Amino acid sequence: MTGRVTIAGLGPGNEALVTPEVTAALAEATDIIGYFPYVARVAPREGLTLHATDNRVELDRALHALQLAASGARVVVVSSGDPGVFAMASAVFEAVEANPEFIETDIRVLPGITAMLAAAAAAGAPLGHDFCAINLSDNLKPWATIEHRLRMAARGDFAMAFYNPRSKSRPLGFEKTLDVLREECGPERLITFARAVSTPDQTLNTVTLADATPEMADMRTVVIVGNSATKRIGRYVYTPRSAT
Amino acid sequence: MTGRVTIAGLGPGNEALVTPEVTAALAEATDIIGYFPYVARVAPREGLTLHATDNRVELDRALHALQLAASGARVVVVSSGDPGVFAMASAVFEAVEANPEFIETDIRVLPGITAMLAAAAAAGAPLGHDFCAINLSDNLKPWATIEHRLRMAARGDFAMAFYNPRSKSRPLGFEKTLDVLREECGPERLITFARAVSTPDQTLNTVTLADATPEMADMRTVVIVGNSATKRIGRYVYTPRSAT
Repeated sequence: MTGRVTIAGLGPGNEALVTPEVTAALAEATDIIGYFPYVARVAPREGLTLHATDNRVELDRALHALQLAASGARVVVVSSGDPGVFAMASAVFEAVEANPEFIETDIRVLPGITAMLAAAAAAGAPLGHDFCAINLSDNLKPWATIEHRLRMAARGDFAMAFYNPRSKSRPLGFEKTLDVLREECGPERLITFARAVSTPDQTLNTVTLADATPEMADMRTVVIVGNSATKRIGRYVYTPRSAT
Repeated sequence: MTGRVTIAGLGPGNEALVTPEVTAALAEATDIIGYFPYVARVAPREGLTLHATDNRVELDRALHALQLAASGARVVVVSSGDPGVFAMASAVFEAVEANPEFIETDIRVLPGITAMLAAAAAAGAPLGHDFCAINLSDNLKPWATIEHRLRMAARGDFAMAFYNPRSKSRPLGFEKTLDVLREECGPERLITFARAVSTPDQTLNTVTLADATPEMADMRTVVIVGNSATKRIGRYVYTPRSAT
Protein backbone atom coordinates (compact mmCIF):
# COMPACT_ATOMS: atom_id res chain seq x y z
CA MET A 1 0.00 0.00 0.00
CA THR A 2 1.34 3.43 -0.92
CA GLY A 3 0.83 6.05 1.72
CA ARG A 4 -0.12 9.62 1.15
CA VAL A 5 -0.85 12.81 3.02
CA THR A 6 -3.97 14.70 2.02
CA ILE A 7 -4.47 18.09 3.63
CA ALA A 8 -8.16 18.79 3.48
CA GLY A 9 -10.27 21.84 4.23
CA LEU A 10 -13.52 21.16 6.07
CA GLY A 11 -14.93 24.64 5.46
CA PRO A 12 -16.15 26.97 8.19
CA GLY A 13 -18.46 24.55 9.99
CA ASN A 14 -21.62 23.81 8.00
CA GLU A 15 -21.40 20.32 6.53
CA ALA A 16 -23.15 21.59 3.37
CA LEU A 17 -19.96 23.56 2.68
CA VAL A 18 -17.67 20.49 2.63
CA THR A 19 -16.73 19.72 -0.98
CA PRO A 20 -17.41 16.24 -2.40
CA GLU A 21 -13.66 15.98 -3.05
CA VAL A 22 -12.95 16.29 0.67
CA THR A 23 -15.79 13.94 1.60
CA ALA A 24 -14.28 11.32 -0.74
CA ALA A 25 -10.82 11.76 0.78
CA LEU A 26 -12.21 11.28 4.29
CA ALA A 27 -14.04 8.13 3.16
CA GLU A 28 -10.85 6.46 1.95
CA ALA A 29 -8.60 7.60 4.80
CA THR A 30 -6.99 5.27 7.31
CA ASP A 31 -5.93 8.07 9.66
CA ILE A 32 -7.26 11.54 10.45
CA ILE A 33 -4.94 14.05 12.08
CA GLY A 34 -5.81 17.51 13.34
CA TYR A 35 -6.81 19.92 16.04
CA PHE A 36 -9.47 18.15 18.12
CA PRO A 37 -12.54 20.25 17.20
CA TYR A 38 -11.85 19.58 13.52
CA VAL A 39 -11.19 15.86 14.00
CA ALA A 40 -14.50 15.74 15.91
CA ARG A 41 -16.26 16.64 12.64
CA VAL A 42 -15.19 13.29 11.10
CA ALA A 43 -17.47 10.35 11.87
CA PRO A 44 -15.66 7.37 13.47
CA ARG A 45 -15.74 4.11 11.54
CA GLU A 46 -14.06 0.71 11.42
CA GLY A 47 -10.53 0.99 10.02
CA LEU A 48 -10.19 4.70 10.70
CA THR A 49 -7.91 6.01 13.44
CA LEU A 50 -8.57 9.50 14.73
CA HIS A 51 -5.54 11.42 16.03
CA ALA A 52 -6.81 14.56 17.72
CA THR A 53 -4.25 16.98 19.12
CA ASP A 54 -4.22 20.30 20.87
CA ASN A 55 -3.66 23.67 19.28
CA ARG A 56 -0.15 25.07 18.57
CA VAL A 57 1.45 21.72 17.77
CA GLU A 58 1.14 22.10 14.01
CA LEU A 59 4.66 20.90 13.21
CA ASP A 60 4.39 17.81 15.44
CA ARG A 61 1.09 17.00 13.79
CA ALA A 62 2.59 17.47 10.32
CA LEU A 63 5.56 15.24 11.10
CA HIS A 64 3.25 12.57 12.49
CA ALA A 65 1.26 12.65 9.24
CA LEU A 66 4.42 12.22 7.15
CA GLN A 67 5.61 9.33 9.33
CA LEU A 68 2.28 7.52 9.08
CA ALA A 69 2.23 7.99 5.30
CA ALA A 70 5.76 6.56 5.08
CA SER A 71 4.45 3.39 6.70
CA GLY A 72 1.66 3.15 4.12
CA ALA A 73 -1.22 5.03 5.74
CA ARG A 74 -3.66 7.20 3.82
CA VAL A 75 -3.55 10.17 6.14
CA VAL A 76 -5.92 13.11 5.96
CA VAL A 77 -4.81 16.19 7.88
CA VAL A 78 -7.94 18.20 8.53
CA SER A 79 -8.13 21.98 8.79
CA SER A 80 -11.16 24.14 9.13
CA GLY A 81 -11.78 26.48 6.23
CA ASP A 82 -9.16 26.16 3.52
CA PRO A 83 -5.95 24.36 4.52
CA GLY A 84 -3.84 26.80 2.51
CA VAL A 85 -5.08 29.90 4.39
CA PHE A 86 -3.49 30.21 7.84
CA ALA A 87 -3.86 26.49 8.37
CA MET A 88 -2.09 23.14 8.05
CA ALA A 89 -0.82 23.09 4.45
CA SER A 90 2.18 25.34 5.08
CA ALA A 91 2.95 23.46 8.30
CA VAL A 92 3.19 20.17 6.40
CA PHE A 93 5.59 21.67 3.85
CA GLU A 94 7.63 23.18 6.67
CA ALA A 95 7.87 19.69 8.18
CA VAL A 96 9.01 18.27 4.84
CA GLU A 97 11.67 20.97 4.58
CA ALA A 98 12.92 20.15 8.09
CA ASN A 99 12.81 16.40 7.40
CA PRO A 100 13.98 15.95 3.80
CA GLU A 101 13.59 12.17 3.99
CA PHE A 102 9.92 12.86 3.32
CA ILE A 103 10.51 14.89 0.13
CA GLU A 104 9.02 12.15 -2.07
CA THR A 105 5.84 11.81 -0.03
CA ASP A 106 2.66 12.01 -2.07
CA ILE A 107 1.07 15.19 -0.71
CA ARG A 108 -2.20 16.65 -1.95
CA VAL A 109 -3.91 19.80 -0.76
CA LEU A 110 -7.71 19.91 -1.15
CA PRO A 111 -9.18 23.40 -0.98
CA GLY A 112 -12.09 24.32 1.24
CA ILE A 113 -14.40 27.27 1.83
CA THR A 114 -12.27 29.63 3.86
CA ALA A 115 -13.86 31.60 6.70
CA MET A 116 -13.47 35.06 5.13
CA LEU A 117 -15.37 34.04 2.00
CA ALA A 118 -18.17 32.40 3.98
CA ALA A 119 -18.33 35.54 6.13
CA ALA A 120 -18.35 37.79 3.07
CA ALA A 121 -21.17 35.74 1.53
CA ALA A 122 -23.21 35.96 4.73
CA ALA A 123 -22.73 39.74 4.87
CA GLY A 124 -23.29 40.44 1.17
CA ALA A 125 -20.19 41.08 -0.91
CA PRO A 126 -17.69 43.16 1.09
CA LEU A 127 -14.74 41.46 -0.66
CA GLY A 128 -16.09 42.14 -4.15
CA HIS A 129 -13.09 44.26 -5.07
CA ASP A 130 -9.34 43.88 -4.39
CA PHE A 131 -8.68 42.68 -0.84
CA CYS A 132 -6.06 41.38 1.59
CA ALA A 133 -6.16 38.51 4.07
CA ILE A 134 -4.13 39.11 7.22
CA ASN A 135 -3.58 36.81 10.19
CA LEU A 136 -3.58 39.09 13.24
CA SER A 137 -2.01 36.50 15.52
CA ASP A 138 1.44 37.57 16.61
CA ASN A 139 2.48 34.02 17.51
CA LEU A 140 4.45 33.74 14.28
CA LYS A 141 5.29 37.33 13.40
CA PRO A 142 6.06 40.51 15.29
CA TRP A 143 3.43 43.19 15.81
CA ALA A 144 5.57 45.62 13.76
CA THR A 145 5.05 43.43 10.69
CA ILE A 146 1.32 43.31 11.28
CA GLU A 147 1.11 47.06 11.73
CA HIS A 148 3.14 47.69 8.57
CA ARG A 149 0.87 45.38 6.56
CA LEU A 150 -2.25 47.05 7.91
CA ARG A 151 -0.91 50.42 6.81
CA MET A 152 0.13 49.21 3.35
CA ALA A 153 -3.25 47.52 2.85
CA ALA A 154 -5.09 50.67 3.95
CA ARG A 155 -2.97 52.92 1.72
CA GLY A 156 -3.64 50.62 -1.23
CA ASP A 157 -7.37 50.97 -0.42
CA PHE A 158 -7.75 47.22 -0.18
CA ALA A 159 -10.66 45.69 1.68
CA MET A 160 -9.23 43.48 4.42
CA ALA A 161 -10.14 40.22 6.10
CA PHE A 162 -8.59 39.36 9.46
CA TYR A 163 -8.13 35.88 10.85
CA ASN A 164 -7.44 35.24 14.55
CA PRO A 165 -8.21 38.83 15.53
CA ARG A 166 -8.14 38.32 19.26
CA SER A 167 -7.49 35.72 21.92
CA LYS A 168 -7.18 35.62 25.69
CA SER A 169 -3.39 35.47 25.36
CA ARG A 170 -3.35 38.52 23.07
CA PRO A 171 -5.90 40.91 24.50
CA LEU A 172 -4.27 44.12 23.24
CA GLY A 173 -3.38 43.40 19.61
CA PHE A 174 -6.83 43.93 18.21
CA GLU A 175 -7.24 47.21 20.05
CA LYS A 176 -4.02 48.39 18.40
CA THR A 177 -5.32 47.14 15.05
CA LEU A 178 -8.47 49.24 15.41
CA ASP A 179 -6.35 52.28 16.31
CA VAL A 180 -4.20 51.84 13.19
CA LEU A 181 -7.28 51.39 11.01
CA ARG A 182 -8.99 54.49 12.39
CA GLU A 183 -5.82 56.47 11.74
CA GLU A 184 -5.45 55.18 8.18
CA CYS A 185 -9.08 54.80 7.06
CA GLY A 186 -11.02 57.34 9.15
CA PRO A 187 -13.96 56.79 11.47
CA GLU A 188 -16.67 56.12 8.86
CA ARG A 189 -15.13 53.00 7.33
CA LEU A 190 -17.35 49.91 7.68
CA ILE A 191 -16.16 46.89 9.65
CA THR A 192 -18.03 43.59 9.88
CA PHE A 193 -17.63 41.09 12.70
CA ALA A 194 -18.71 37.64 11.57
CA ARG A 195 -18.72 35.05 14.33
CA ALA A 196 -19.14 31.27 13.98
CA VAL A 197 -19.96 31.71 10.32
CA SER A 198 -22.21 29.07 8.73
CA THR A 199 -23.00 27.44 12.09
CA PRO A 200 -26.20 27.77 14.15
CA ASP A 201 -24.29 30.24 16.36
CA GLN A 202 -23.58 32.63 13.47
CA THR A 203 -23.77 36.34 14.24
CA LEU A 204 -23.01 39.28 11.97
CA ASN A 205 -22.40 42.80 13.18
CA THR A 206 -21.44 45.70 10.91
CA VAL A 207 -20.48 49.04 12.44
CA THR A 208 -18.24 51.98 11.57
CA LEU A 209 -14.66 52.02 12.82
CA ALA A 210 -15.73 54.83 15.16
CA ASP A 211 -18.12 52.42 16.88
CA ALA A 212 -15.95 49.30 16.75
CA THR A 213 -14.62 47.92 20.04
CA PRO A 214 -12.12 45.11 20.65
CA GLU A 215 -14.75 43.05 22.47
CA MET A 216 -16.68 42.64 19.23
CA ALA A 217 -14.11 40.02 18.14
CA ASP A 218 -12.95 36.72 19.58
CA MET A 219 -11.11 33.70 18.17
CA ARG A 220 -14.27 32.47 16.42
CA THR A 221 -14.65 35.80 14.62
CA VAL A 222 -13.52 36.77 11.15
CA VAL A 223 -13.34 40.52 10.71
CA ILE A 224 -13.84 42.25 7.36
CA VAL A 225 -12.96 45.90 6.82
CA GLY A 226 -14.34 47.53 3.70
CA ASN A 227 -12.44 49.70 1.28
CA SER A 228 -13.29 53.39 0.83
CA ALA A 229 -16.27 52.54 -1.41
CA THR A 230 -17.85 49.80 0.73
CA LYS A 231 -21.43 50.60 1.64
CA ARG A 232 -24.57 49.22 3.18
CA ILE A 233 -27.63 48.56 1.11
CA GLY A 234 -30.59 47.25 3.05
CA ARG A 235 -29.27 44.50 5.32
CA TYR A 236 -26.27 43.84 3.08
CA VAL A 237 -22.72 45.20 2.98
CA TYR A 238 -20.98 45.27 -0.36
CA THR A 239 -18.02 46.69 -2.20
CA PRO A 240 -18.61 47.85 -5.77
CA ARG A 241 -16.63 46.24 -8.54
CA SER A 242 -15.26 49.51 -9.85
CA ALA A 243 -12.67 51.84 -8.35
CA THR A 244 -11.29 55.19 -9.35
CA MET B 1 -44.61 31.58 -4.34
CA THR B 2 -41.96 33.89 -2.89
CA GLY B 3 -39.12 34.58 -5.23
CA ARG B 4 -35.49 34.84 -4.31
CA VAL B 5 -32.10 35.44 -5.85
CA THR B 6 -29.33 33.05 -4.90
CA ILE B 7 -25.85 33.92 -6.12
CA ALA B 8 -23.93 30.69 -6.19
CA GLY B 9 -20.28 29.85 -6.75
CA LEU B 10 -19.63 26.80 -8.93
CA GLY B 11 -15.96 26.58 -8.03
CA PRO B 12 -13.13 26.55 -10.54
CA GLY B 13 -14.41 23.80 -12.82
CA ASN B 14 -14.19 20.36 -11.22
CA GLU B 15 -17.66 19.21 -10.16
CA ALA B 16 -16.13 17.62 -7.03
CA LEU B 17 -15.45 21.18 -5.84
CA VAL B 18 -19.10 22.27 -5.97
CA THR B 19 -20.46 22.46 -2.42
CA PRO B 20 -23.59 20.48 -1.49
CA GLU B 21 -25.20 23.82 -0.55
CA VAL B 22 -24.83 25.03 -4.14
CA THR B 23 -25.97 21.71 -5.58
CA ALA B 24 -29.14 21.94 -3.47
CA ALA B 25 -29.81 25.51 -4.60
CA LEU B 26 -29.47 24.47 -8.26
CA ALA B 27 -31.87 21.57 -7.67
CA GLU B 28 -34.65 23.84 -6.41
CA ALA B 29 -34.11 26.67 -8.89
CA THR B 30 -36.66 27.70 -11.52
CA ASP B 31 -34.21 29.92 -13.41
CA ILE B 32 -30.43 29.95 -13.88
CA ILE B 33 -28.75 33.15 -15.00
CA GLY B 34 -25.12 33.64 -15.89
CA TYR B 35 -22.29 33.84 -18.36
CA PHE B 36 -22.83 31.05 -20.87
CA PRO B 37 -19.89 28.75 -19.97
CA TYR B 38 -21.08 28.72 -16.34
CA VAL B 39 -24.74 28.15 -17.24
CA ALA B 40 -23.54 25.26 -19.41
CA ARG B 41 -22.37 23.53 -16.22
CA VAL B 42 -25.98 23.21 -15.01
CA ALA B 43 -27.88 20.18 -16.33
CA PRO B 44 -31.15 21.07 -18.10
CA ARG B 45 -34.32 19.65 -16.58
CA GLU B 46 -38.09 20.07 -16.76
CA GLY B 47 -39.17 23.27 -15.03
CA LEU B 48 -35.78 24.92 -15.21
CA THR B 49 -35.12 27.84 -17.57
CA LEU B 50 -31.50 28.55 -18.47
CA HIS B 51 -30.67 32.19 -19.27
CA ALA B 52 -27.14 32.27 -20.68
CA THR B 53 -25.67 35.63 -21.56
CA ASP B 54 -22.43 37.01 -22.88
CA ASN B 55 -19.61 38.46 -20.83
CA ARG B 56 -19.57 42.12 -19.67
CA VAL B 57 -23.33 42.38 -19.17
CA GLU B 58 -23.19 41.76 -15.42
CA LEU B 59 -25.60 44.56 -14.48
CA ASP B 60 -28.21 43.54 -17.07
CA ARG B 61 -27.94 39.99 -15.83
CA ALA B 62 -28.32 41.10 -12.21
CA LEU B 63 -31.38 43.23 -12.99
CA HIS B 64 -32.94 40.35 -14.89
CA ALA B 65 -32.46 38.12 -11.84
CA LEU B 66 -34.14 40.67 -9.56
CA GLN B 67 -37.06 41.07 -11.97
CA LEU B 68 -37.61 37.32 -12.23
CA ALA B 69 -37.48 36.97 -8.43
CA ALA B 70 -40.06 39.75 -8.09
CA SER B 71 -42.41 37.66 -10.19
CA GLY B 72 -41.90 34.67 -7.90
CA ALA B 73 -39.00 32.81 -9.50
CA ARG B 74 -36.28 31.01 -7.54
CA VAL B 75 -33.35 32.40 -9.47
CA VAL B 76 -29.81 31.16 -9.15
CA VAL B 77 -27.16 33.47 -10.57
CA VAL B 78 -24.13 31.31 -11.24
CA SER B 79 -20.52 32.43 -11.07
CA SER B 80 -17.42 30.36 -11.40
CA GLY B 81 -15.27 30.22 -8.30
CA ASP B 82 -16.71 32.25 -5.44
CA PRO B 83 -19.43 34.75 -6.36
CA GLY B 84 -18.02 37.30 -3.90
CA VAL B 85 -14.56 37.40 -5.48
CA PHE B 86 -14.54 39.44 -8.71
CA ALA B 87 -17.83 37.88 -9.73
CA MET B 88 -21.59 38.36 -9.68
CA ALA B 89 -22.39 39.11 -6.02
CA SER B 90 -21.27 42.74 -6.10
CA ALA B 91 -23.03 43.21 -9.46
CA VAL B 92 -26.34 42.09 -7.94
CA PHE B 93 -25.99 44.53 -5.03
CA GLU B 94 -25.06 47.30 -7.49
CA ALA B 95 -28.26 46.53 -9.39
CA VAL B 96 -30.27 46.71 -6.15
CA GLU B 97 -28.71 50.05 -5.35
CA ALA B 98 -29.59 51.39 -8.81
CA ASN B 99 -33.12 49.95 -8.58
CA PRO B 100 -34.26 50.45 -4.99
CA GLU B 101 -37.65 48.85 -5.67
CA PHE B 102 -35.77 45.55 -5.22
CA ILE B 103 -34.38 46.40 -1.78
CA GLU B 104 -36.59 43.82 -0.04
CA THR B 105 -35.63 40.97 -2.38
CA ASP B 106 -34.51 37.83 -0.60
CA ILE B 107 -30.86 37.58 -1.70
CA ARG B 108 -28.45 34.88 -0.58
CA VAL B 109 -24.81 34.47 -1.53
CA LEU B 110 -23.44 30.92 -1.46
CA PRO B 111 -19.65 30.75 -1.33
CA GLY B 112 -17.59 28.60 -3.65
CA ILE B 113 -13.99 27.52 -4.08
CA THR B 114 -12.36 30.55 -5.62
CA ALA B 115 -9.71 30.08 -8.30
CA MET B 116 -6.77 31.40 -6.30
CA LEU B 117 -7.32 28.90 -3.50
CA ALA B 118 -7.71 25.97 -5.90
CA ALA B 119 -4.54 27.15 -7.65
CA ALA B 120 -2.69 27.52 -4.36
CA ALA B 121 -3.75 24.01 -3.32
CA ALA B 122 -2.57 22.57 -6.62
CA ALA B 123 0.81 24.29 -6.27
CA GLY B 124 1.34 23.56 -2.57
CA ALA B 125 0.69 26.43 -0.17
CA PRO B 126 1.93 29.70 -1.69
CA LEU B 127 -0.83 31.68 0.08
CA GLY B 128 -0.02 30.22 3.50
CA HIS B 129 0.83 33.63 4.93
CA ASP B 130 -0.76 37.08 4.54
CA PHE B 131 -1.82 37.73 0.95
CA CYS B 132 -3.74 40.02 -1.40
CA ALA B 133 -6.17 39.27 -4.21
CA ILE B 134 -6.05 41.76 -7.09
CA ASN B 135 -8.14 41.86 -10.25
CA LEU B 136 -5.76 42.98 -12.99
CA SER B 137 -8.53 43.86 -15.42
CA ASP B 138 -8.64 47.58 -16.10
CA ASN B 139 -12.24 47.47 -17.31
CA LEU B 140 -13.47 48.81 -13.98
CA LYS B 141 -10.48 50.69 -12.60
CA PRO B 142 -7.60 52.72 -14.02
CA TRP B 143 -4.14 51.24 -14.43
CA ALA B 144 -2.79 53.80 -11.93
CA THR B 145 -4.92 52.20 -9.19
CA ILE B 146 -3.69 48.74 -10.12
CA GLU B 147 -0.08 49.88 -10.12
CA HIS B 148 -0.45 51.59 -6.75
CA ARG B 149 -1.99 48.45 -5.24
CA LEU B 150 0.77 46.27 -6.64
CA ARG B 151 3.36 48.53 -5.02
CA MET B 152 1.57 48.66 -1.66
CA ALA B 153 1.12 44.88 -1.66
CA ALA B 154 4.80 44.37 -2.52
CA ARG B 155 5.97 46.81 0.14
CA GLY B 156 3.80 45.05 2.71
CA ASP B 157 5.50 41.78 1.63
CA PHE B 158 2.15 40.20 0.91
CA ALA B 159 1.90 37.20 -1.36
CA MET B 160 -0.44 38.11 -4.21
CA ALA B 161 -3.02 36.37 -6.35
CA PHE B 162 -4.07 37.94 -9.64
CA TYR B 163 -7.37 37.37 -11.40
CA ASN B 164 -7.91 38.25 -15.09
CA PRO B 165 -4.20 38.86 -15.68
CA ARG B 166 -4.39 39.21 -19.43
CA SER B 167 -6.82 39.28 -22.31
CA LYS B 168 -6.70 40.00 -26.02
CA SER B 169 -8.19 43.44 -25.40
CA ARG B 170 -5.54 44.24 -22.76
CA PRO B 171 -2.29 42.82 -24.11
CA LEU B 172 0.02 45.26 -22.32
CA GLY B 173 -1.26 45.41 -18.73
CA PHE B 174 0.32 42.18 -17.58
CA GLU B 175 3.69 43.14 -19.05
CA LYS B 176 3.52 46.34 -16.99
CA THR B 177 2.52 44.29 -13.94
CA LEU B 178 5.61 42.11 -14.33
CA ASP B 179 7.78 45.22 -14.65
CA VAL B 180 6.37 46.70 -11.43
CA LEU B 181 6.83 43.40 -9.59
CA ARG B 182 10.45 43.03 -10.73
CA GLU B 183 11.13 46.57 -9.58
CA GLU B 184 9.48 46.05 -6.16
CA CYS B 185 10.31 42.39 -5.44
CA GLY B 186 13.53 41.69 -7.35
CA PRO B 187 14.22 39.04 -9.97
CA GLU B 188 14.33 35.98 -7.70
CA ARG B 189 10.74 36.18 -6.43
CA LEU B 190 8.68 33.10 -7.36
CA ILE B 191 5.60 33.43 -9.57
CA THR B 192 3.19 30.61 -10.34
CA PHE B 193 0.96 30.48 -13.42
CA ALA B 194 -1.99 28.17 -12.81
CA ARG B 195 -4.16 27.63 -15.86
CA ALA B 196 -7.57 25.91 -16.00
CA VAL B 197 -7.20 24.84 -12.40
CA SER B 198 -9.00 21.66 -11.35
CA THR B 199 -9.96 20.78 -14.93
CA PRO B 200 -8.37 18.14 -17.20
CA ASP B 201 -6.52 21.03 -18.92
CA GLN B 202 -4.79 22.15 -15.71
CA THR B 203 -1.20 23.34 -16.04
CA LEU B 204 1.08 24.75 -13.37
CA ASN B 205 4.25 26.66 -14.09
CA THR B 206 6.44 28.25 -11.41
CA VAL B 207 9.35 30.47 -12.43
CA THR B 208 11.23 33.44 -11.03
CA LEU B 209 10.15 36.95 -11.96
CA ALA B 210 13.33 37.18 -14.01
CA ASP B 211 12.07 34.35 -16.21
CA ALA B 212 8.38 35.31 -16.27
CA THR B 213 6.91 36.49 -19.58
CA PRO B 214 3.47 37.94 -20.31
CA GLU B 215 2.61 35.03 -22.60
CA MET B 216 2.63 32.68 -19.60
CA ALA B 217 -0.80 34.06 -18.63
CA ASP B 218 -4.16 34.23 -20.37
CA MET B 219 -7.74 34.73 -19.19
CA ARG B 220 -7.94 31.16 -17.86
CA THR B 221 -4.85 31.71 -15.70
CA VAL B 222 -4.64 32.67 -12.05
CA VAL B 223 -1.23 34.06 -11.15
CA ILE B 224 0.27 33.76 -7.67
CA VAL B 225 3.32 35.74 -6.61
CA GLY B 226 5.06 34.63 -3.45
CA ASN B 227 6.24 36.83 -0.63
CA SER B 228 9.94 37.23 0.18
CA ALA B 229 9.99 33.88 2.04
CA THR B 230 8.15 31.76 -0.54
CA LYS B 231 10.21 28.79 -1.63
CA ARG B 232 10.17 25.58 -3.59
CA ILE B 233 10.42 22.24 -1.90
CA GLY B 234 10.41 19.28 -4.24
CA ARG B 235 7.57 19.87 -6.69
CA TYR B 236 5.72 22.18 -4.29
CA VAL B 237 5.76 25.93 -3.72
CA TYR B 238 4.93 27.16 -0.27
CA THR B 239 5.06 30.20 1.97
CA PRO B 240 6.05 29.60 5.60
CA ARG B 241 3.61 30.58 8.32
CA SER B 242 6.10 32.79 10.13
CA ALA B 243 7.50 36.18 9.16
CA THR B 244 10.09 38.45 10.65
